[in-house]
Amino acid sequence: MVSQIAKLPKPPYYVVCFSSQRTAGDHGYGAMADTMVALAEQQPGYLGMESVRGPDGFGITNSYWVDEASILAWKAVVSHAAAQRLGRERWYEDYRVIVAKVERAYDIKRED
Amino acid sequence: MVSQIAKLPKPPYYVVCFSSQRTAGDHGYGAMADTMVALAEQQPGYLGMESVRGPDGFGITNSYWVDEASILAWKAVVSHAAAQRLGRERWYEDYRVIVAKVERAYDIKRED
Repeated sequence: MVSQIAKLPKPPYYVVCFSSQRTAGDHGYGAMADTMVALAEQQPGYLGMESVRGPDGFGITNSYWVDEASILAWKAVVSHAAAQRLGRERWYEDYRVIVAKVERAYDIKRED
Repeated sequence: MVSQIAKLPKPPYYVVCFSSQRTAGDHGYGAMADTMVALAEQQPGYLGMESVRGPDGFGITNSYWVDEASILAWKAVVSHAAAQRLGRERWYEDYRVIVAKVERAYDIKRED
């Protein structure tokens, strides 16, 4: 199985944690989400992304970035694509975004 | 609907992002996960937790803490409960933990 856990450099780097509760129905959400991922991957300073949503519509997306400047540039691109404004009205019941500086990391990988 | 998005103070505070790929089968995982949440909630400095796992076994848990000392104390409790050691062998194909200092936060809540 290919791991969905992003391969990251040693800290320091930054993480953006996006927690959200979806509204019912798609309303173009799937297409928007695909576009947002594609745009992120094209951004300078993008390191990786992990995303999961449960059947009740609650989801977490953690994206990883070289520095804050990369995050601000990405935020401008997202705003330009109008995803934030539309998201507020159509796609999410509630959401929170935090920007945090990663100071330490630990990982394991099974060897079998 | 009661939001699963944790209510948090204004930054700065800390986030621990735990990304993991489950192995097949339960192997006592459900009971362990419940215990880990209960232990976290009893810890000084605990602010909240958000967790979601998809049908393919990939999951993200973000927990929020007042400071690094709280996280280290929580880590010691988890180690004492042997969850990390057993988890490595039984429950997770792969995982990564990062500790990050939250510098900025944004949120919205629908008013309707």
